[in-house]
Amino acid sequence: MKFVSIIMGSKSDFDVMKSCSQTLEEFGVQYELIISSAHRSPERTKDYIAKAEAKGAQVFIAAAGMAAHLAGVLSSKTVKPIIGVPMSASALNGIDALLSTVQMPAGMPVATVAIGKAGAINSAYLAMQILALNNEELSMKLQEDRIAKAKKVEMDSLEIETIL
Amino acid sequence: MKFVSIIMGSKSDFDVMKSCSQTLEEFGVQYELIISSAHRSPERTKDYIAKAEAKGAQVFIAAAGMAAHLAGVLSSKTVKPIIGVPMSASALNGIDALLSTVQMPAGMPVATVAIGKAGAINSAYLAMQILALNNEELSMKLQEDRIAKAKKVEMDSLEIETIL
Amino acid sequence: MKFVSIIMGSKSDFDVMKSCSQTLEEFGVQYELIISSAHRSPERTKDYIAKAEAKGAQVFIAAAGMAAHLAGVLSSKTVKPIIGVPMSASALNGIDALLSTVQMPAGMPVATVAIGKAGAINSAYLAMQILALNNEELSMKLQEDRIAKAKKVEMDSLEIETIL
Amino acid sequence: MKFVSIIMGSKSDFDVMKSCSQTLEEFGVQYELIISSAHRSPERTKDYIAKAEAKGAQVFIAAAGMAAHLAGVLSSKTVKPIIGVPMSASALNGIDALLSTVQMPAGMPVATVAIGKAGAINSAYLAMQILALNNEELSMKLQEDRIAKAKKVEMDSLEIETIL
Amino acid sequence: MKFVSIIMGSKSDFDVMKSCSQTLEEFGVQYELIISSAHRSPERTKDYIAKAEAKGAQVFIAAAGMAAHLAGVLSSKTVKPIIGVPMSASALNGIDALLSTVQMPAGMPVATVAIGKAGAINSAYLAMQILALNNEELSMKLQEDRIAKAKKVEMDSLEIETIL
Amino acid sequence: MKFVSIIMGSKSDFDVMKSCSQTLEEFGVQYELIISSAHRSPERTKDYIAKAEAKGAQVFIAAAGMAAHLAGVLSSKTVKPIIGVPMSASALNGIDALLSTVQMPAGMPVATVAIGKAGAINSAYLAMQILALNNEELSMKLQEDRIAKAKKVEMDSLEIETIL
Amino acid sequence: MKFVSIIMGSKSDFDVMKSCSQTLEEFGVQYELIISSAHRSPERTKDYIAKAEAKGAQVFIAAAGMAAHLAGVLSSKTVKPIIGVPMSASALNGIDALLSTVQMPAGMPVATVAIGKAGAINSAYLAMQILALNNEELSMKLQEDRIAKAKKVEMDSLEIETIL
Amino acid sequence: MKFVSIIMGSKSDFDVMKSCSQTLEEFGVQYELIISSAHRSPERTKDYIAKAEAKGAQVFIAAAGMAAHLAGVLSSKTVKPIIGVPMSASALNGIDALLSTVQMPAGMPVATVAIGKAGAINSAYLAMQILALNNEELSMKLQEDRIAKAKKVEMDSLEIETIL
Repeated sequence: MKFVSIIMGSKSDFDVMKSCSQTLEEFGVQYELIISSAHRSPERTKDYIAKAEAKGAQVFIAAAGMAAHLAGVLSSKTVKPIIGVPMSASALNGIDALLSTVQMPAGMPVATVAIGKAGAINSAYLAMQILALNNEELSMKLQEDRIAKAKKVEMDSLEIETIL
Repeated sequence: MKFVSIIMGSKSDFDVMKSCSQTLEEFGVQYELIISSAHRSPERTKDYIAKAEAKGAQVFIAAAGMAAHLAGVLSSKTVKPIIGVPMSASALNGIDALLSTVQMPAGMPVATVAIGKAGAINSAYLAMQILALNNEELSMKLQEDRIAKAKKVEMDSLEIETIL
Repeated sequence: MKFVSIIMGSKSDFDVMKSCSQTLEEFGVQYELIISSAHRSPERTKDYIAKAEAKGAQVFIAAAGMAAHLAGVLSSKTVKPIIGVPMSASALNGIDALLSTVQMPAGMPVATVAIGKAGAINSAYLAMQILALNNEELSMKLQEDRIAKAKKVEMDSLEIETIL
Repeated sequence: MKFVSIIMGSKSDFDVMKSCSQTLEEFGVQYELIISSAHRSPERTKDYIAKAEAKGAQVFIAAAGMAAHLAGVLSSKTVKPIIGVPMSASALNGIDALLSTVQMPAGMPVATVAIGKAGAINSAYLAMQILALNNEELSMKLQEDRIAKAKKVEMDSLEIETIL
Repeated sequence: MKFVSIIMGSKSDFDVMKSCSQTLEEFGVQYELIISSAHRSPERTKDYIAKAEAKGAQVFIAAAGMAAHLAGVLSSKTVKPIIGVPMSASALNGIDALLSTVQMPAGMPVATVAIGKAGAINSAYLAMQILALNNEELSMKLQEDRIAKAKKVEMDSLEIETIL
Repeated sequence: MKFVSIIMGSKSDFDVMKSCSQTLEEFGVQYELIISSAHRSPERTKDYIAKAEAKGAQVFIAAAGMAAHLAGVLSSKTVKPIIGVPMSASALNGIDALLSTVQMPAGMPVATVAIGKAGAINSAYLAMQILALNNEELSMKLQEDRIAKAKKVEMDSLEIETIL
Repeated sequence: MKFVSIIMGSKSDFDVMKSCSQTLEEFGVQYELIISSAHRSPERTKDYIAKAEAKGAQVFIAAAGMAAHLAGVLSSKTVKPIIGVPMSASALNGIDALLSTVQMPAGMPVATVAIGKAGAINSAYLAMQILALNNEELSMKLQEDRIAKAKKVEMDSLEIETIL
Repeated sequence: MKFVSIIMGSKSDFDVMKSCSQTLEEFGVQYELIISSAHRSPERTKDYIAKAEAKGAQVFIAAAGMAAHLAGVLSSKTVKPIIGVPMSASALNGIDALLSTVQMPAGMPVATVAIGKAGAINSAYLAMQILALNNEELSMKLQEDRIAKAKKVEMDSLEIETIL
């Protein structure tokens, strides 16, 4: 069973990260979703990664705010790809989480996406793009989604556009 | 033939991005490396992506500075995973390139890594982690690299450490 | 027919960009306004630019948020002047869009204006200043607008001023 | 006589702004270039703008660093298009000049380009794009330049590229 | 007649700058307060400065947001001390106005105070400190105010403090 | 009597700093809490520190916003550990207070924690960690709190988790 | 005896602050210059202020880097005007010192000037503008300096200008 | 045996962190110093903490750059006080390390000090202030150091001061 594993650092991240799991569901991609903190539950985090990897997790998505270490911790425990979603959880609007997630030292990459909801959705897309490398059907769906998105732009435009 | 495709926006990025191709070489991973600009050679960029994808490119690595659009342009042309490396190419030390690369809209992810050399190396690691999902040998090598890195830390420490 | 072409990256930009089209209308300047995304509908964007240019578009105004590539994409497709309006569409208050718009590489300029509504209005003014170089009547109107604006400052002041 | 007027706030800006005048020369576009400060020589600045406009200046390019008010001052004195080039002249690497130049209030646009040398070159390109709206020959040259730039990318690539 | 002159760049600044004029009133210091814009009414601004200086203005307070040039313009027109109050009038929370106000070139100082309401109040205090150099009574009042402020801290503390 | 001393620069900081005193209460740690300003009541601040130290204050917690000097002032008056909590009290979201608190010169440390509420709570935890070095019971409680926190993560997760 | 008092937080600030004292000397304005730290020598700082004020100090100039509290400390000890010069003394290029100096709470102003050398020179000019309110001769000199500066701009321009 | 434990994330941090160990040596405080990375050697880090704590480590000092997770990882493994020193190890001048170190979630404090060398020295001072709570001799030394530092300021001043 190949699936995506989503880990959030705190329950408050779920409001935003729902966009991630919903996106995976729309494409019929299996996922696990749990809360586990880099700092408050380091053992649980470590144990979960090992278990998830053994069960077939292909990609990990880690969402955290402030000094967002969760993705980095995952990166240090597995060589599976880790996607980091910086949450806007402090007065600093997520710039703290972005830098804590993306500025990883050489050899320990975190695939960082945008702050907040756009990033939550993109973490799902990126995970699916990785899975699609060996899943022709999913690859097809992603390409169809592109066509649908382009169509959507046209439809949106028709509602307001002015053409001479 | 499965390989990694590296595209740089300008020749001046090569000094830093050599660390990317060298890392791939160390692990025996095949790659292509070209210069093509999102703005100065948009057609070439588009044509290259199609050709590379047809030949077997699994992951694209895009390195660009300033208003770094290259990774985003790649993202709009393929559903293969795109890794973006922000270059420090202006007075702003790469923060412009980082934000231009990571803050992608929903549905068009760029897997962003650190600014500059650490990012260049990590783009190679991330690409290999993705390939390794279906390459047991490469996965093994990445795990051995982790052990070597941990060993290296110990060796470095021995040179300077003070233990009571 | 000489006109201004306004392209927004997403429907949500229209609330702010209405200030742009309304300003053009106040001066009787013809414009087209559509939605087209650099990333979600790259072909549509490319086709539109060619068509608009053929029909007489003199200046393009591109509004986009986050990793705002739209103005840069336009810049790479035409040598007509491109005006970029950074939208405040993320947790980062538009600083991401500003840097993604203004920090263009040599040879590919984007005439960048302020973030958000002030920029939306100024993109119209800048477009008209360009058109006015060959439109004496429009130039006159812009100069009268300056006088009206100075007058408005005086009127505003009268409401609250304290003079000894 | 139609020409571009370049104004620098201080002699130290010339090192960077030479790239602007040289670019105009390469395309055979006439220009004036002077030093005049928004703060140190406000009368001179005002007088020059009037004189230059009377002589045929079509576009003004203003280069200044720190609290860069020069482009804004020009904007308040004429309805000709003003291009602002933020100089990196302080400890803050030009972010002060960028914000002082681009964040103009509604009705007083400054067409802002990148910080430093890339901006200096782009101010010339943007000025030429504006002039080219009524100068078919210049428009042609700008299009040829695009082709040359794309070619240059290919040549640069050949020196270092790795193709499988 | 010695007085303080307060100039705001736009009517919307009055909400905040009321704190400035009210502070002056509390100390019985005479002031003028007008709206005049560096960009929208440059002539009015220039004329006003000359007139105010002739009438006895000792210190000018300039409040402006975004690319806040007003204080700098005043600085270039008089050798009287200019106090700049950066307004938080854009998506950037006043950091644009702060840098546009404080980063003045050598020879043209602007005495910059905090962004927004604290700055509005402090501009009044700073102006009074300057006037008090030659006004023993005002100097006394300022010293009494310090004692009152220290007292106020004690009172505030009593409401909530916990002492063992 | 060993206790923690909490000093806030202004009454408005109490809303946030309540989280600090409540955390200490939960662990049964004694504290004093007063308002005293580095700038508005420097003498009171100085006197209080001496008195508190004499009574047994082991650690000082200083909360202040904007140009947050309070922690630094404390640091200069005692060699007891000073914890600084940057308040988000201005348009700049606390980045001003963070830098004013953490960037202390060599020899005068301030133990800086996060901006706002997380920092308020962490200032209490850090103070208790220091006290616990010589208080076995408190050390035990802190370790139990860690276990409770890890448990809480599990409970939170159960409410929303998806496990395959 | 009326004079300007210059206080630097550390000996390393002297390189930059020499520009301040030299500027005062050029105009024949008397000054004192000492090193005293807000944190390392708080008593000395306090004693000096009282003594200097008694001797006739009219304006204090405080130069400090990092968490620059010196100007704020002065502000809390006297109602004389305090000018703050942020030094670029850390990895953060003086943005820490700027915010620590300018973001003072209501009632305790610091007249902040630019970071580094431009600020050092402007602190002298601002001090002289304040003194000149009651020193006709100095006022004259400052006005002549303006004329000289405008002249200098013209001379600088002549060396490089291109006029059609 | 009570001692301070210093952990650096990489050998390149030693140049700066030497200032930390030297400061401890000057005061005769025992310390251990090792290299161990949060990401590259997570097991080693975890093992070391346990061993060091068992041997008597009272305070941990963690120095790391970029996405500096080391101090946070320590914080999650022990309830001993953790001091974090942000290193300036990337294009972003240490602002990434500062935010990654200081913005810790509630319950997991890191006592953060300044970026770079000042922080390295202050981490030693802060550690000693903590130890001094139960070490009268060390407390004395710290107080004498304050007197010496104040004296040093006077000596420095004498070399350059100008007194009227």
